[in-house]
Amino acid sequence: MNLMWLSVIAGILGFGAVAYFTRYVLAQDEGSEAVREVSAAIREGAMAFLRREYQSLAVVIVIITIILLVVPELGWRVAVAFVFGALCSMGAGFAGMNMATRANGRTCAAAAHSLDQGLRVAFRGGAVMGLTVVSIGILGVVILYFLWHDDPAFLAVIPAYGTGASLVALFGRVGGGIFTKGADAGSDLVGKVEAGIPEDDPRNAAVVADNVGDNVGDVAGMGADLFETYVQSIIATMTLSVVVVGLGIAGDHETAWLIPMLIAAGGILASIIGCFVVRVGETVDMGKLLGALRRGTVTASILTAIFAFLIIHFLDASIGLFWAMLAGLIAGVLIGESTSYFTSYEFKPTKGIAEASASGAGATIIQGFSVGMMSVWPAVLLIVGAIIAAFYFGSFYGVALGAVGMLSTLGVTLATDAYGPVADNAGGITTMTGQPPEVRERTDALDSLGNTTAATGKGFAIGAAALNSLGLILSYAIAVGIVTIAGGSIQTTDPGALSLLSAPVLIGVLLGALMPPVFCAMTMQSVAITTEAIIAEVRRQWREIPGLMQGTSKPQYGLVVDICTKAALRAMLAPSIMAIVAPVIVGVVLGKYALAGFLVGAVVTGFIMAVMLNNAGGAWDNAKKFIEAGMHGGKGSDAHKAAVVGDTAGDPMKDTAGPSLNIMLKLMSVIALMLAPVLTQFTGII
Amino acid sequence: MNLMWLSVIAGILGFGAVAYFTRYVLAQDEGSEAVREVSAAIREGAMAFLRREYQSLAVVIVIITIILLVVPELGWRVAVAFVFGALCSMGAGFAGMNMATRANGRTCAAAAHSLDQGLRVAFRGGAVMGLTVVSIGILGVVILYFLWHDDPAFLAVIPAYGTGASLVALFGRVGGGIFTKGADAGSDLVGKVEAGIPEDDPRNAAVVADNVGDNVGDVAGMGADLFETYVQSIIATMTLSVVVVGLGIAGDHETAWLIPMLIAAGGILASIIGCFVVRVGETVDMGKLLGALRRGTVTASILTAIFAFLIIHFLDASIGLFWAMLAGLIAGVLIGESTSYFTSYEFKPTKGIAEASASGAGATIIQGFSVGMMSVWPAVLLIVGAIIAAFYFGSFYGVALGAVGMLSTLGVTLATDAYGPVADNAGGITTMTGQPPEVRERTDALDSLGNTTAATGKGFAIGAAALNSLGLILSYAIAVGIVTIAGGSIQTTDPGALSLLSAPVLIGVLLGALMPPVFCAMTMQSVAITTEAIIAEVRRQWREIPGLMQGTSKPQYGLVVDICTKAALRAMLAPSIMAIVAPVIVGVVLGKYALAGFLVGAVVTGFIMAVMLNNAGGAWDNAKKFIEAGMHGGKGSDAHKAAVVGDTAGDPMKDTAGPSLNIMLKLMSVIALMLAPVLTQFTGII
Repeated sequence: MNLMWLSVIAGILGFGAVAYFTRYVLAQDEGSEAVREVSAAIREGAMAFLRREYQSLAVVIVIITIILLVVPELGWRVAVAFVFGALCSMGAGFAGMNMATRANGRTCAAAAHSLDQGLRVAFRGGAVMGLTVVSIGILGVVILYFLWHDDPAFLAVIPAYGTGASLVALFGRVGGGIFTKGADAGSDLVGKVEAGIPEDDPRNAAVVADNVGDNVGDVAGMGADLFETYVQSIIATMTLSVVVVGLGIAGDHETAWLIPMLIAAGGILASIIGCFVVRVGETVDMGKLLGALRRGTVTASILTAIFAFLIIHFLDASIGLFWAMLAGLIAGVLIGESTSYFTSYEFKPTKGIAEASASGAGATIIQGFSVGMMSVWPAVLLIVGAIIAAFYFGSFYGVALGAVGMLSTLGVTLATDAYGPVADNAGGITTMTGQPPEVRERTDALDSLGNTTAATGKGFAIGAAALNSLGLILSYAIAVGIVTIAGGSIQTTDPGALSLLSAPVLIGVLLGALMPPVFCAMTMQSVAITTEAIIAEVRRQWREIPGLMQGTSKPQYGLVVDICTKAALRAMLAPSIMAIVAPVIVGVVLGKYALAGFLVGAVVTGFIMAVMLNNAGGAWDNAKKFIEAGMHGGKGSDAHKAAVVGDTAGDPMKDTAGPSLNIMLKLMSVIALMLAPVLTQFTGII
Repeated sequence: MNLMWLSVIAGILGFGAVAYFTRYVLAQDEGSEAVREVSAAIREGAMAFLRREYQSLAVVIVIITIILLVVPELGWRVAVAFVFGALCSMGAGFAGMNMATRANGRTCAAAAHSLDQGLRVAFRGGAVMGLTVVSIGILGVVILYFLWHDDPAFLAVIPAYGTGASLVALFGRVGGGIFTKGADAGSDLVGKVEAGIPEDDPRNAAVVADNVGDNVGDVAGMGADLFETYVQSIIATMTLSVVVVGLGIAGDHETAWLIPMLIAAGGILASIIGCFVVRVGETVDMGKLLGALRRGTVTASILTAIFAFLIIHFLDASIGLFWAMLAGLIAGVLIGESTSYFTSYEFKPTKGIAEASASGAGATIIQGFSVGMMSVWPAVLLIVGAIIAAFYFGSFYGVALGAVGMLSTLGVTLATDAYGPVADNAGGITTMTGQPPEVRERTDALDSLGNTTAATGKGFAIGAAALNSLGLILSYAIAVGIVTIAGGSIQTTDPGALSLLSAPVLIGVLLGALMPPVFCAMTMQSVAITTEAIIAEVRRQWREIPGLMQGTSKPQYGLVVDICTKAALRAMLAPSIMAIVAPVIVGVVLGKYALAGFLVGAVVTGFIMAVMLNNAGGAWDNAKKFIEAGMHGGKGSDAHKAAVVGDTAGDPMKDTAGPSLNIMLKLMSVIALMLAPVLTQFTGII
């Protein structure tokens, strides 16, 4: 039997678990009439966003497909794989969003019974997303494998599957990120600040959009982002099989293709088990709640490591490949831990921001910014450590396999992430429908936990994206022929041309490093534009709909969602085009060596900026929560006002600009990889 | 005659102009008794800072000198050149500070007569600094040249002169940067915010320290920073003479040494002329004032270009070297223009921040941060353009010569910078001594102008530092033997080992890129620590000195200066040690190739972060000034309060963290260059 069937079995088991969790969630009490109504409005808005996003996507997919079909070097299989990748990612996004927006009201109802009940419904709602992503991801690659693995062009075709996923991730993460913060800031500014009404007040036409945004950004966006990273990491490892074969680390190409696929399969099995062990008692205690989720991820990590060891042993591959994979797995877990240190208010950095807030908002900003910058070092050192170890044990292939290791437990880590917006929504619904205080207390606890897991999830996502981009850059280098495997070692084809100190490479690095700050500036501007559109619409409704402020009539929630969707999709255009066009220009004008430098420069600066923005934003958010918990004068104090400024400033950094960088890095690398056949014969115009 | 004597003549002419300007300033009216008193207090504080700083410096110099004498590869000449470089920089710093603190009171008195009079005194005070720096700089190198240029070790000895200057710059820029913002923030927080008394109120014991800080940071710090860049750029070009000779671009080593020296000499002459053409009429008009200063720099730039053309033509060198030099000169001027676009409130970016402030401080921060990130692109593209052109025309040597071109007019550009703190001080003295409103209006206009020139100066300083660091990295590559000149072209000694995609280089790049954010976080923390020390002391004086708040007794200004000095010098220790130790560790543990990657990674991220921090800070500052000029509700409005938050947050970014990065980049490159003899035989422990 071809062992690749094991991956098929894992994918099917994953779907089995998805079916089980779906039935579980749907069997829960839907809550009161009011809860059902609000939940339905959010679901409707979320689906409306998805519909419009997928419409825009469809246009772009058709255009790109035509281009792919026209370029003779690529062939029709590439176009098919591309469309297939996009459809898989869209399917996973739809499934996750559908479940998350059904689980929110039920979590609210379950929290009325007990905390454990609430946690379980929310987490299982998230688990549907996590396991759907990995199951679709692995089955998609397997299908392409069985279709074409005997074809000599196989390794040139499968990257297109990842590119399709990239495109969806671009829309999901960048468009979704702009939507979510535009809606959030718009709703707050026009409601809390301007009209002086509380957050989640049903008279504010933007509140549904705000809740929709949580799903759009943290479920669909995060899901599409990690779907892409997940499949890309597997694909990058497969395309680097030439390294393993050349260096004699693991037999033949088939074995080199099996290793990442079987490790991913083992990771799915481990994730399913991890999802089942998440539960907690009745005490509302952050430590215990966090412990409950951590039990799931730790269990899955240990199991995956054991599976990977057995797989590599059984396949007769070098045991070094196990260490390479383990290095990635451990680095991923530790990046999560370090993020939690820098952004959770149980530790010094975030407490320091809260303390500084007593001296005013200026100090809040300075302190938070320092924390963000400081938080870069463990992230970089962990990634560097993983690269050193993975490279030592498995060369380029090892680095790519490290990324697979880091992402192998994605099923459960993504469940932990997607849990967040479900809990957040449940909290919103609780307020909007006026539930008793003990229910709000429970959903608040679940929501707080969601903030921490969101920060850790972001750290994990950028770490994986960086490692994965490096793998893609190495694939690019081989595909474009500037690096070859000969005589058991890796050689630079033209010594000197890829030298760090040659002018094209150096210039490429500088230009690449320029991309992340400009991209961030553009996405943050996009949020501002979307915010303005929302504010104008809410004001209009207050002005034109009689009785709205008195609560006798209802605002047009859907209209705000629609306006926000249009604004976000329009605003994502400029940064996206830049990310797509820049590598093409660099490749064509400055040549393939400069493009390698460009990609490295972008990954390095992008990784650092993303960690900085995510963690500064997360720390500001939690410093505010720490003060709201009664420290430094509590809610309403001057320190609280200062902390709110930090939180507001940090929001688009951590929820739009930072996460969008993941997409930019991967997208640019993928485009370079696709350009490779064109650039091979080419060293630039200059 | 050896043409090098022309440089001696230029240096002497520079001193002649310094003497003339000094006499001019000292001949001016010292102002009223009260003005003289405040000015004396500032001078005393500034000199006290310098004394203590130089004491600490002396200890470090002795230690390093002993180390240099002990390492057998280096020899005693290196130690002598090192001490000589440090002494030259200290001398220039002392002279500049002495003059700036004598010009401040006289500017205040001159502004009582007319604006032009005020501008002239302040600018000529600054010109003493500018011309002293370049004159001492060039004469120092010339002396070493005449002493040892026949010695085969000459090219290994002169970098030590630059290293001595580096060390002084480290103390001046980092220590001074921490002092200036610590004093500023401390004085504001304890005075304006806590006690509710106006800025520059004489009852606040920290006001003198605040005014001392302007001199310490923007005169001594900026001067030492640019003294270093100036001499380093000349030295880097000279050490790369091997490239010119190897490639046959410009005859022999002697010619290759003469070119940067004579261009620098021409630049000094041009700067002297430029300093004399600065004057303005009576209208208080920002455009005209800026035009007056710009006339000086533009005149000098054009003259320098003409001189350079003649020099290169006369020396029979390739005319390409003229284009290389011109590329740097033009890039420097344009970086200044772009900085002014992003940070001056006459243009859209800063106006946008002021507008966003109407929606609260969160929006101010987001908008300013976006502006900072966006401002990176012209800076990077200009530097990239200069590198491409300079490299095309003169290879590595051309790149270094581009830096010389950029810095050739330093005499007048630094005069423009050093003018700022003189005007700022004059404004402070005007308030502290209760001058009539029309005087304050004039000094305010001069001060505003100083803010703009400070921002442009910073852009210029980081651009020059980045270009210069690249030159030093290339010198390092040649010194350590990973790049050689053979057969008329540049070759990588070990093809593949310096490949961008080899693990050590890639890891080096990542680690290097990590340095700037961590360094910035540390320096910003240092500011916070110093601020706290000052606040505690001012509170103590209010508590313990009777009659202080009633104005019947005086605070102990000197004590605050002293405490601030000690705190700043202690706080600069950790970041400085990190910047010194990190390249040593990378070189020894990961080897010479990784170290090259490390330096490139640091320069790229450091350049981008510095531009971002400087420009965001400058834009926030001027957005506040724009609102204070009556826009968006003017002073006291909610928009103004939000803008103040931006200004406060931006201060340590633009005056401490950003400028300190210049030093870090150069210092790490210089240390690598000094380590080169040790690392040659060595590829790392791992």
